[in-house]
Amino acid sequence: MKQEITFIQREQLKTKPDTASLGFGRYFSDYMFEMDYHSDLGWFNPRITPYEPLTLEPSSMVFHYGQAIFEGMKAYKTPDSSIQLFRPEKNMKRLNDSCDRLCIPRIDEEFLLEGIKQLIVTEKDWVPNGEGTSLYIRPFIFSTEPYLGVRPANQYKLLVILSPSGAYYGSQLSPVKIYVEEQYVRAVIGGVGHVKTAGNYAASLKAQEKADAGGYAQILWLDAKENKYVEEVGSMNIFFKIKGEVVTPRLNGSILPGVTRDSVIELLKYWNIPVREEKISIEEVFAAHQRGELEEVFGAGTAAVISPVGELTWKDQSITINGNNIGQLSQDIYNELTGIQLGKKEDPFNWTVKVTEVEV
Amino acid sequence: MKQEITFIQREQLKTKPDTASLGFGRYFSDYMFEMDYHSDLGWFNPRITPYEPLTLEPSSMVFHYGQAIFEGMKAYKTPDSSIQLFRPEKNMKRLNDSCDRLCIPRIDEEFLLEGIKQLIVTEKDWVPNGEGTSLYIRPFIFSTEPYLGVRPANQYKLLVILSPSGAYYGSQLSPVKIYVEEQYVRAVIGGVGHVKTAGNYAASLKAQEKADAGGYAQILWLDAKENKYVEEVGSMNIFFKIKGEVVTPRLNGSILPGVTRDSVIELLKYWNIPVREEKISIEEVFAAHQRGELEEVFGAGTAAVISPVGELTWKDQSITINGNNIGQLSQDIYNELTGIQLGKKEDPFNWTVKVTEVEV
Ligand SMILES: Cc1ncc(COP(=O)(O)O)c(C=O)c1O
Ligand SMILES: Cc1ncc(COP(=O)(O)O)c(C=O)c1O
Repeated sequence: MKQEITFIQREQLKTKPDTASLGFGRYFSDYMFEMDYHSDLGWFNPRITPYEPLTLEPSSMVFHYGQAIFEGMKAYKTPDSSIQLFRPEKNMKRLNDSCDRLCIPRIDEEFLLEGIKQLIVTEKDWVPNGEGTSLYIRPFIFSTEPYLGVRPANQYKLLVILSPSGAYYGSQLSPVKIYVEEQYVRAVIGGVGHVKTAGNYAASLKAQEKADAGGYAQILWLDAKENKYVEEVGSMNIFFKIKGEVVTPRLNGSILPGVTRDSVIELLKYWNIPVREEKISIEEVFAAHQRGELEEVFGAGTAAVISPVGELTWKDQSITINGNNIGQLSQDIYNELTGIQLGKKEDPFNWTVKVTEVEV
Repeated sequence: MKQEITFIQREQLKTKPDTASLGFGRYFSDYMFEMDYHSDLGWFNPRITPYEPLTLEPSSMVFHYGQAIFEGMKAYKTPDSSIQLFRPEKNMKRLNDSCDRLCIPRIDEEFLLEGIKQLIVTEKDWVPNGEGTSLYIRPFIFSTEPYLGVRPANQYKLLVILSPSGAYYGSQLSPVKIYVEEQYVRAVIGGVGHVKTAGNYAASLKAQEKADAGGYAQILWLDAKENKYVEEVGSMNIFFKIKGEVVTPRLNGSILPGVTRDSVIELLKYWNIPVREEKISIEEVFAAHQRGELEEVFGAGTAAVISPVGELTWKDQSITINGNNIGQLSQDIYNELTGIQLGKKEDPFNWTVKVTEVEV
């Protein structure tokens, strides 16, 4: 039984920002999707409603006990001016994985995706169409019950907000400097690193502060148990091209299973380029460089799609990768994925989902 | 330079709940202390203001990236009807430790404590005086800036809310059943387990769910690296009395430095009872029990003060401690600490701070 999605009209629409000045995460559209949960009612009252401030008790559990999860995905305008999503069902599934780990009641994935599509149809004029732009989609859930005490809440709110976002890169990809963090850790097996919960990002800020101070763009995270195996780079998954083969850390319970990561792996297989998911130590990476075999390193995530790494520092060693230039494979993957996402290239994987076809 | 604390009066006071029906964390007093932070202004606009809902943007960073920290302390009514706090300066210091780890701007500890005292003076009629009751004080800080992107926020809110709370135990302490968790972990060195951030509690819920299902009151957490060393019990620090000596895990960077923990250690030293802070493995605990030397086990924290453990399960072994009775030392510590907190016993440590003397 599907619920009706109510529409609540706003009095006045906002003035849309200039595409050139969009940046990321600063502007929000006119409407949002909202739905509430109460243990007596389940998820109820789905609605598309004006984007406006929320009213929350100071005792709302989210402020104290941090039950908060989110997703991040994008809507793209294609050359024929239709709007499409990229593998959104993966984000819906991951949201439910986050629900499970954080003791938040699961959502109906299909229904939420329909709600998101309906929201985007409503907000279609907010999807920018400049080079590299997109409409960022942020579904999130947090506990609202007014109660102090450590236990899963009985009340939650789910929201989906939309933010038009500018090009991540200027005219082309640019390699970044990263460093291997050995003091702080992002996640540990048995913890919550494999899901998208707010606390993971709060915990990562201190190391990012160190990175900034040292002139690095991102952190290369190691595993928390042995401080030895590579896990992720900033908020992206990481790939190494070593002697013609691509390696990425195996999902081990403390790595976030990125949608981009999965797409890169699929694409490489399709191209018949050897790709392996396995434990890889930072020593191995540096040893491969010593042997002259470390050809490319790149991060992969929804925001940047592909982020080439030009320089990598571990303790007092710094290595330059591919002469600090964008690797050919990094560039090819970037072109292919963005081409598919923007509807400029064929999509042999059936990854894209047209929004404008929706009938809710 | 101290700032003025503004007072904003509410129109109508709430009806106070019955002392008998208080429970914990359900009722909130008429006023709260509030203060805001903006990177251009520092902490500003300290005020005592009606306890009422907050208005927050859906993009407020706390919902997404989880910069949220808190403290927990209590105000007690003494037999002569004055009100006192227990080592509040320790909570102020720990709040700043949490600020540091979570990249939240530090607060002026003395000023906040004055604000809290002034709030309690305003709300003095909310301090219950039934047996075992107290006024629970919850200072907390979270990011408010409307922005999507992983970095420390430029805007925060600090609140202090008050909740009258009932007796934790009925007429006397009662031993609980706990089990050793081996799949989920609470915290890891290099992470945020040594500070009071919201995400730690969200991450702990899944194991608590397992505990509930198995009929256990609490989880005994092991270290995340080796799954071997005892860390905490639920949201309390843990103590073992083995052959006349008391042992508690050494603060290692993944254990919360509890105020009650510190007080127990001080008290034992004062009593000339041997007490050591050191790494203790779960094997050692079970071995001590085999030798008939494990005399008492108890948790220590602000909420329960002392929580005796009567039964402990690890894998398929269950052991009963002290015949599932309250240990003499557990009881003595409980009596002494609550006696000092309630002003019924002398306070040789100068731990208590009278609120009614405050002049702000
Ligand atoms: C910690 C972390 N790792 C990896 C990713 C990449 O995931 P995705 O490709 O689904 O955006 C993200 C971003 O979502 C992330 O937050
Ligand atoms: C994880 C954790 N450990 C220990 C404690 C005990 O600390 P305290 O004695 O300061 O209440 C608490 C409660 O504050 C806690 O949340």
